[in-house]
Amino acid sequence: MNQPKNQQSAIRHALNVKREDDFAQWYQAVIAEAELAEESGVRGCMVIKPWGYGIWERIQKLMDERIKEAGVENCYFPLFIPLSYFAKEAEHVEGFAKEMAVVTHHRLIQDGKGGLVPDPEAKLEEPLVVRPTSETVIGAAMARWVQSWRDLPLLTNQWANVVRWEMRTRMFLRTSEFLWQEGHTAHADEADAMTETLRALEMYRSFAEDVLAMPVIAGPKPENERFPGAVETFSIEAMMQDGKALQAGTSHYLGTTFAEAAGIRYQDKEGQQTLAHTTSWGVSTRLIGGVIMTHGDDDGLRTPPQVAPQQIVILPMLRDNDGDEALLAYCEELRASLAKQNAFGERVRVLLDKRPGKATQKRWAWVKKGVPLILEIGGRDAEGGQVSALRRDRLWRQDGKVNFAAMARDAFVESAVGELEAIQNALFAEARDRRDAQIERGVTDPAGLATYFAEDRKFPGWVEMVWSKPTGAALDKVVEQLKALKLTIRNTPMGGEPVSGSCPFTGEPAVERILIARAY
Amino acid sequence: MNQPKNQQSAIRHALNVKREDDFAQWYQAVIAEAELAEESGVRGCMVIKPWGYGIWERIQKLMDERIKEAGVENCYFPLFIPLSYFAKEAEHVEGFAKEMAVVTHHRLIQDGKGGLVPDPEAKLEEPLVVRPTSETVIGAAMARWVQSWRDLPLLTNQWANVVRWEMRTRMFLRTSEFLWQEGHTAHADEADAMTETLRALEMYRSFAEDVLAMPVIAGPKPENERFPGAVETFSIEAMMQDGKALQAGTSHYLGTTFAEAAGIRYQDKEGQQTLAHTTSWGVSTRLIGGVIMTHGDDDGLRTPPQVAPQQIVILPMLRDNDGDEALLAYCEELRASLAKQNAFGERVRVLLDKRPGKATQKRWAWVKKGVPLILEIGGRDAEGGQVSALRRDRLWRQDGKVNFAAMARDAFVESAVGELEAIQNALFAEARDRRDAQIERGVTDPAGLATYFAEDRKFPGWVEMVWSKPTGAALDKVVEQLKALKLTIRNTPMGGEPVSGSCPFTGEPAVERILIARAY
Repeated sequence: MNQPKNQQSAIRHALNVKREDDFAQWYQAVIAEAELAEESGVRGCMVIKPWGYGIWERIQKLMDERIKEAGVENCYFPLFIPLSYFAKEAEHVEGFAKEMAVVTHHRLIQDGKGGLVPDPEAKLEEPLVVRPTSETVIGAAMARWVQSWRDLPLLTNQWANVVRWEMRTRMFLRTSEFLWQEGHTAHADEADAMTETLRALEMYRSFAEDVLAMPVIAGPKPENERFPGAVETFSIEAMMQDGKALQAGTSHYLGTTFAEAAGIRYQDKEGQQTLAHTTSWGVSTRLIGGVIMTHGDDDGLRTPPQVAPQQIVILPMLRDNDGDEALLAYCEELRASLAKQNAFGERVRVLLDKRPGKATQKRWAWVKKGVPLILEIGGRDAEGGQVSALRRDRLWRQDGKVNFAAMARDAFVESAVGELEAIQNALFAEARDRRDAQIERGVTDPAGLATYFAEDRKFPGWVEMVWSKPTGAALDKVVEQLKALKLTIRNTPMGGEPVSGSCPFTGEPAVERILIARAY
Repeated sequence: MNQPKNQQSAIRHALNVKREDDFAQWYQAVIAEAELAEESGVRGCMVIKPWGYGIWERIQKLMDERIKEAGVENCYFPLFIPLSYFAKEAEHVEGFAKEMAVVTHHRLIQDGKGGLVPDPEAKLEEPLVVRPTSETVIGAAMARWVQSWRDLPLLTNQWANVVRWEMRTRMFLRTSEFLWQEGHTAHADEADAMTETLRALEMYRSFAEDVLAMPVIAGPKPENERFPGAVETFSIEAMMQDGKALQAGTSHYLGTTFAEAAGIRYQDKEGQQTLAHTTSWGVSTRLIGGVIMTHGDDDGLRTPPQVAPQQIVILPMLRDNDGDEALLAYCEELRASLAKQNAFGERVRVLLDKRPGKATQKRWAWVKKGVPLILEIGGRDAEGGQVSALRRDRLWRQDGKVNFAAMARDAFVESAVGELEAIQNALFAEARDRRDAQIERGVTDPAGLATYFAEDRKFPGWVEMVWSKPTGAALDKVVEQLKALKLTIRNTPMGGEPVSGSCPFTGEPAVERILIARAY
């Protein structure tokens, strides 16, 4: 589709708040206007609405294929975890104790005032925690399942809800309950476990970039940012349009921490009882927050074609007269020929939206939801064998009106798959270029950090620096310095040239690069 | 595949307990030996293992297609429900109060003795219930979403875990936590809501019969068996091999009960504020229990091809010598040509099981899991272009050995889809014939019931009787009489001839048929 240059003048956008004016408000507006989710009335919990849940279903389907492809098998483990399971691993419990929902009773009774209260007679002997993550309960199962070296590697995954009682919540990014997948694997030794940890990390990197069109940087996190109980935590970090970092997925090498706590031991080839090495890795509905803040614009969401519940929406311009029948027949034929195409190895998802309502209202509802291609078909289009098409990723306006490209119907059908692929690529390229332009490599000391991240700077990006990878008290000092600027070390990008020079924090020889950023 | 008659003599079966000897023990044995699930160590909660979860994934996929086909949209609602939501609907709360898990705290602290306790400082102001079902919390969302008659019907569904604190649990059939889908819809009037209730019921009936090969009888339940808060509850009832009934799915017309409690009101075409009529309908992991008790035999599970995670398993008879390479290449080619076939509108699911281990051990593991077709391929088969095939639904033995049918490879590939369809049909026909033979229509009074269901009778079936559909105290009396015999009225089969005669319980004119049975 050829479209003239975007005419920025006098544009009224579909949202009543722009990114540049108030990014947090804009984020809420996209969620509301694209009908992705809403507050539920239950503290910190959201209702995920059809378009938002549809994106999650796409994420589930495509991630699940990759998980199965790697030989990992899906299981389902209990929602409730006895307190004693947690108590076995001190660091893990310390990391989660502050945010756990605890079940203490299994029955309600009338309070005599028309209300209900937990029945004191039905108090649990041992309280149950609603899983914040499942290492402990899956570890207990692994201890039963792993007997011999022949049982390893043991590769499991579950799709589940988890609960972390967050004090400040934000839809998709930080909710008390969220949906995720958690992979849990057990291996004979560190080398095999680390290979799996990195396999999962690479799976997440390619998923984020190839499916969500969201560029990320993968690497190990510093010691102070590790998952409670992990020996090494790796993350993928994405840059949002306000320059902040979003940890979009993590993969942990857990050493023998959880194997010791749960007793995951196997008889090795020499007949010795040996502790297994475990890993865990997860991504969650948080990814949807990442998609919004990577691809949204002032007209709402732009949904990457691979995860769009509908990739093409056809809007017939109904007139409530005799012509409607022929128009609908034309649209239905168009729908059927599009639905036969394959894009990204699957059938094209196309919807003919026949609901009553004003065509322009319906158009803007789909624009805000970010459906990649929108077709408006009027009576004349139908007669002339034409379509009027709109690419959501480069919505443009002239004289305040959205301009559709008029095309011959057959030409559109032929080009549709190519357009969807082009949109997917364009969204990625745009996000990657913006991200790359916002990684600052000229800052070489803490004072430079303070300048770069000065309070009045709008949407600062990330700073890449070298450091000496301090540990213990020396690391604490760096973390404190950064904390004063509301900064954290996101991760250590993998690959790249060897580093030289000295660490701006410790003065010692630098050993690696780190990314410093504000973060969600 | 032609197979000689089953030679019953001197057969040693794969399970160490037979159905006829101890059905309950047999059920546990199938679950253990087919590696479907196991006790988790958390009271009443199970771990669903890969083969069991794989069946659930198949159920989810095929049911979800039907749900979407009906225009119902998936959403996700909170796990936690504030107590006050429940208190609004007295009958509903009375039905569930006795079995609700209650969250009272959101933080743990050290107890000073190395353990953990709920932090008294972190007590919730209002306790939260872990959803036993979601009418109340979805009703609250519907009250926000429904404003005008244009918003109706509102058709939503969620796939979720729910918790009902059961005192006596049994894997898949009755667990404290289980997985299900719950459809929730709102309509302008009773007629539209009832149409949806019956649509869901018919969806469940056809799913049970066409996909799970499990014959069911659909119909309304008597008043005393209604879902708490429902105006009418319909069920599908399946007969297990021990003659007991399993309620395998329910669909409820809820009238305006929940609309009143949550305030689901819309402006009708005349501008009046009007209460919506709602429905809910669900099936759960209980269906897997139904599949086991419908199709299992003394060698384990027989998994219906449509829900089998693998439909064909190829077992190469590896010899750890030079011949293995050619054998594996032959098997891989065979796998690839089978995987290209379509059965039931999807690609055939075929696994080449290359894991080390003795071939017969591996065979019996797959027999117990109930994979529909098992192929054993030895070196000679590979050289001769043959396969040795086994149909799991009619496993037969001669002289204590399982006899495979030898076939030309190409002939097998050509017939495979037909065999899978034949297995699906054969499992259904077998279950239907058994069920039909076990519905007793000759019992005409309560004394006859006592005889038919006498304690020493092994695996009694169901009794179909007529009755006058009493209500209130008269119904209570019937229920009490049946309870003394451990019987319940399952439902009123829909369709069929008009009834005549008088009700054996009340003496009044009979108006409909009922099914009386022991039940899970």
